[in-house]
Amino acid sequence: MNQEIFTINNLWMMVATILVFIMHLGFASLEAGLTRAKNTVNILFKNTIIPAIGLLTYAFIGFNLMYPGEVFSGGFFGLAGLGISLPEGWDTYAYNEGYTFYTDFIFQAMFAATAATIVSGAVAERIKLGPFIFFSILYVGVCYPIVGMWKWGGGFLDALDVPFYDFAGSTIVHSVGGWGALVGACLLGPRLGKYTEKGMNAIPGHNIPLAVIGVFLLWFGWFGFNGGSVLSADPGTVSLVFVTTAIAGAAGAFGALVASYLKFKSYDITMVLNGILAGLVGITAGADQMGIGEAAIIGFIGGTLVVFAVVFFDRIKVDDPVGAISVHLVGGIWGTLAVGLFGNLASFQQVISQLIGIGSVGAFCFAFSWIIFFSMKKMMGIRVDEKEELEGLDINEHSMRAYPDFASKD
Amino acid sequence: MNQEIFTINNLWMMVATILVFIMHLGFASLEAGLTRAKNTVNILFKNTIIPAIGLLTYAFIGFNLMYPGEVFSGGFFGLAGLGISLPEGWDTYAYNEGYTFYTDFIFQAMFAATAATIVSGAVAERIKLGPFIFFSILYVGVCYPIVGMWKWGGGFLDALDVPFYDFAGSTIVHSVGGWGALVGACLLGPRLGKYTEKGMNAIPGHNIPLAVIGVFLLWFGWFGFNGGSVLSADPGTVSLVFVTTAIAGAAGAFGALVASYLKFKSYDITMVLNGILAGLVGITAGADQMGIGEAAIIGFIGGTLVVFAVVFFDRIKVDDPVGAISVHLVGGIWGTLAVGLFGNLASFQQVISQLIGIGSVGAFCFAFSWIIFFSMKKMMGIRVDEKEELEGLDINEHSMRAYPDFASKD
Amino acid sequence: MNQEIFTINNLWMMVATILVFIMHLGFASLEAGLTRAKNTVNILFKNTIIPAIGLLTYAFIGFNLMYPGEVFSGGFFGLAGLGISLPEGWDTYAYNEGYTFYTDFIFQAMFAATAATIVSGAVAERIKLGPFIFFSILYVGVCYPIVGMWKWGGGFLDALDVPFYDFAGSTIVHSVGGWGALVGACLLGPRLGKYTEKGMNAIPGHNIPLAVIGVFLLWFGWFGFNGGSVLSADPGTVSLVFVTTAIAGAAGAFGALVASYLKFKSYDITMVLNGILAGLVGITAGADQMGIGEAAIIGFIGGTLVVFAVVFFDRIKVDDPVGAISVHLVGGIWGTLAVGLFGNLASFQQVISQLIGIGSVGAFCFAFSWIIFFSMKKMMGIRVDEKEELEGLDINEHSMRAYPDFASKD
Repeated sequence: MNQEIFTINNLWMMVATILVFIMHLGFASLEAGLTRAKNTVNILFKNTIIPAIGLLTYAFIGFNLMYPGEVFSGGFFGLAGLGISLPEGWDTYAYNEGYTFYTDFIFQAMFAATAATIVSGAVAERIKLGPFIFFSILYVGVCYPIVGMWKWGGGFLDALDVPFYDFAGSTIVHSVGGWGALVGACLLGPRLGKYTEKGMNAIPGHNIPLAVIGVFLLWFGWFGFNGGSVLSADPGTVSLVFVTTAIAGAAGAFGALVASYLKFKSYDITMVLNGILAGLVGITAGADQMGIGEAAIIGFIGGTLVVFAVVFFDRIKVDDPVGAISVHLVGGIWGTLAVGLFGNLASFQQVISQLIGIGSVGAFCFAFSWIIFFSMKKMMGIRVDEKEELEGLDINEHSMRAYPDFASKD
Repeated sequence: MNQEIFTINNLWMMVATILVFIMHLGFASLEAGLTRAKNTVNILFKNTIIPAIGLLTYAFIGFNLMYPGEVFSGGFFGLAGLGISLPEGWDTYAYNEGYTFYTDFIFQAMFAATAATIVSGAVAERIKLGPFIFFSILYVGVCYPIVGMWKWGGGFLDALDVPFYDFAGSTIVHSVGGWGALVGACLLGPRLGKYTEKGMNAIPGHNIPLAVIGVFLLWFGWFGFNGGSVLSADPGTVSLVFVTTAIAGAAGAFGALVASYLKFKSYDITMVLNGILAGLVGITAGADQMGIGEAAIIGFIGGTLVVFAVVFFDRIKVDDPVGAISVHLVGGIWGTLAVGLFGNLASFQQVISQLIGIGSVGAFCFAFSWIIFFSMKKMMGIRVDEKEELEGLDINEHSMRAYPDFASKD
Repeated sequence: MNQEIFTINNLWMMVATILVFIMHLGFASLEAGLTRAKNTVNILFKNTIIPAIGLLTYAFIGFNLMYPGEVFSGGFFGLAGLGISLPEGWDTYAYNEGYTFYTDFIFQAMFAATAATIVSGAVAERIKLGPFIFFSILYVGVCYPIVGMWKWGGGFLDALDVPFYDFAGSTIVHSVGGWGALVGACLLGPRLGKYTEKGMNAIPGHNIPLAVIGVFLLWFGWFGFNGGSVLSADPGTVSLVFVTTAIAGAAGAFGALVASYLKFKSYDITMVLNGILAGLVGITAGADQMGIGEAAIIGFIGGTLVVFAVVFFDRIKVDDPVGAISVHLVGGIWGTLAVGLFGNLASFQQVISQLIGIGSVGAFCFAFSWIIFFSMKKMMGIRVDEKEELEGLDINEHSMRAYPDFASKD
């Protein structure tokens, strides 16, 4: 190691940090675009405040839960203290060859908020703001870092004989968000008018350009999300990850295009957008272990799966306005499994380890989310009342409208 | 060469790659903003699927057509095989001092889709989706890399006594797109109601903020498009290219502002936006060969030209909804010529070489586009029917609307 | 110093340059989103042309005023000539260890336009375009670089016994813009209908998603604004600056959330957005001198202050449509003072130096702005007439509308 390589590595990790940061604008735009104009301020409010929550809780406790180091650490839980204290040599490669302590913290902190942002899409247009924020604080500040520690903090999933593998977080980030989304959507119930006796009513998103902006910004940021997970600027690995990330997203678009055209006989842009994201979620667990062909297959299948998953969740009447569960939970499970099926690590034992990871993370996140959402539902209610839902959350929770100068359709 | 400089070079090339990537969102936003709300989903669908097409076709065949290496290569055509196979030492500076093999591929792949994206703006609001996608696959997968090989793959334009010079692609990328745009717009004919007996009717874009977002993202990405074309992080050259790129865009804004104010007596924001782009296209061929003053002149003239070109194409009834032909074809020709007129390479012989490049690329792309578009026109038709055009492509090709919650004007 | 570190430093400075560039899209989006649809083209036109003005005037004169070097330089004023001439060794670390001459120029040039962009928000919806552009040219080309020279060009503020400290420009950039905004808003007077006998009427912004896009892009760019002000890629300092920048923005969101909820009993997204910006402006002066806790305090107080400032300026009937004065002037003063109160430099003497800087910059900018705006007001008028203001500036100054396909509310 020398100072030059350390400085380059750290520079890339900082650039990756802000690429992950801009993903929060991607989520905000996508979720706002795919919901109705009357709830736009509410969605944007949540997606603006969540990164702030993520950064602050991660500084206070999350980072110390996720990377307990030698302070106190079992296989399932550890804690290095509260708040941020600088270790000796924090700004040299004595701390880490890839980054300074502060870069380490801020890169991980940008990841943290993602989990709650994923949830926000699935519970949109009907959840009360206060309970959602309370849930987000606990989910980002406690649940996510505990799960993260199981793998990235050296916990039990990392200590399996054939270690569970999740390069940048198909399970650790995306399906963590996906489980919270599933629980939230189930306990809230569907939006008024979504499922009637006559069948399912599509509730179209109000601003497709905004959704497109969201997906492109997410894809853009994903190069930092996956590329930064190399934890250095190593030319070979990072450039491989860029290629697999790009190809999987592209193949996801095609998978969703083909599947949705065969199923619906129309060119459905929201399916293509979610297909891109599913391709990206899918490659995330193994982005450094696949070649270009495997990345294309994983992305294509991810994009196909999202179409069937969206139809499936509508059939069982789990109302997910933006398709977050299909993208992040189904896509996350698929990507995690794919590490055992394709690429350098493919083996039967790896599949087993991947299933252990998927199952244990799923069980914990499901239970964690269910306890919080269910308790709040009993104690204070988590859903806005019917009148407020019909009028829109913007005017009721925020006393304002997102587009006051425009006439609405009806 | 050492590992440190190699790692830095490769890092810059990767950052440049994602800057070029985000240009696709720029094109999507700009083209959607400058067309009508009833065709927005359609435009966005095309601009979302094109980068996916570009990445996949470039992996399958484009990269091998464009950089045939020693496998098989004449002056006009070569092919290194199908698909991506890793050469020995692909991740070291033995492959290239500026980047790994994967970085090479992905940077070039991001460029590839640009050609079709340019076309999509000019044929907007009336082309059928299927034929456009078919055209895009061939144009991005075959036409663009063949032309690219003529210069960047060591083909005949690079082998002229005074080699044709096109630093980052005023001709190789932008006018390739521009020729396809011209042919498409001509064979489709103008939008209904654009040119009537009483004269030309302006059909204003439906969302100016979206167009502004598009142009700024394009300018932002252009620092990677031009800056990455240095093919290393060389401090002097890349910073020079940043300055010429920034100044040419700024001067383009002024050129268009002055010309459009003198001509129309109003402050026309769409002209200023296209002026910025024309300034950027103009500097692209010689971004590393100009000083700050030359960049300002080239940009200013580019911005002025775009105003006259827009008026000219309307006069000859070539309907280009977003001004793509004026920006990318006229601007691309201007920028390519400017290399012979200004800066380090200025000479009479260089002008001749530039004209040879402009002419040969133009002839090939015009013929290629014409054969495909004309064949499709005869066989299946390339234009939607009148009813569909009047109602909008969104509801007819995609069964959805971009802004379902808002009341439309009429 | 060696070539590797020089190349890395320069690479980071170039990346920071384009991060600052994209802040101009942030300002454009934010200001357009927080004003009315009928004035959107006008706001966007100004925010598109201002970066162009900034780049060109900075090349012609600004850079030479701000960094006069040894050519001619007193404590208050200096000039190195006109236009850009390359010094010997401009592309080596003989020029500077952190960047080439061209990187130096372009990074500073991107900063320059910010001052006028801030003004544009405060004078929106009623100022004539011509006078605003004339003001911008002088403010960006002359006022900003003279003030900048006082500190960053080695002028009298840098020569105080305890030097005035302003790391990235809470005073030098943000409050320079803020003073111009204050003067402009005062001399123009409030928008028609804003303050009536019955009290203050809120005039809501027309597009909240656009405002959110703006704030996230500004935060994104701020990592380059503050991070680039390290003037190298030093791992420790830049990563510290990233952390303080992120945390201050997050804490600003919370400060504004709490203050606005207590004051208005609603979740006000525009306050949260301005709180983020105030947190960022607040940390800018001392981003490299604070720890994570101090950054949180400074940001939180900044976010709180912005709520009270917005209320205060409305009470004294200074109409600032986007809250620019509250964010950039109040936030800038707060951040500059905070350097004397918190962190490594905290001392009574530092507070005095900070007050000298705040006062002298304020007096100069106030006078400069007042002279220009007042002269123009007397000579040609700076405000559009009543009919034009009611109909909107778009249709009157630009002969077009931002959203022609949508029906407006009234």
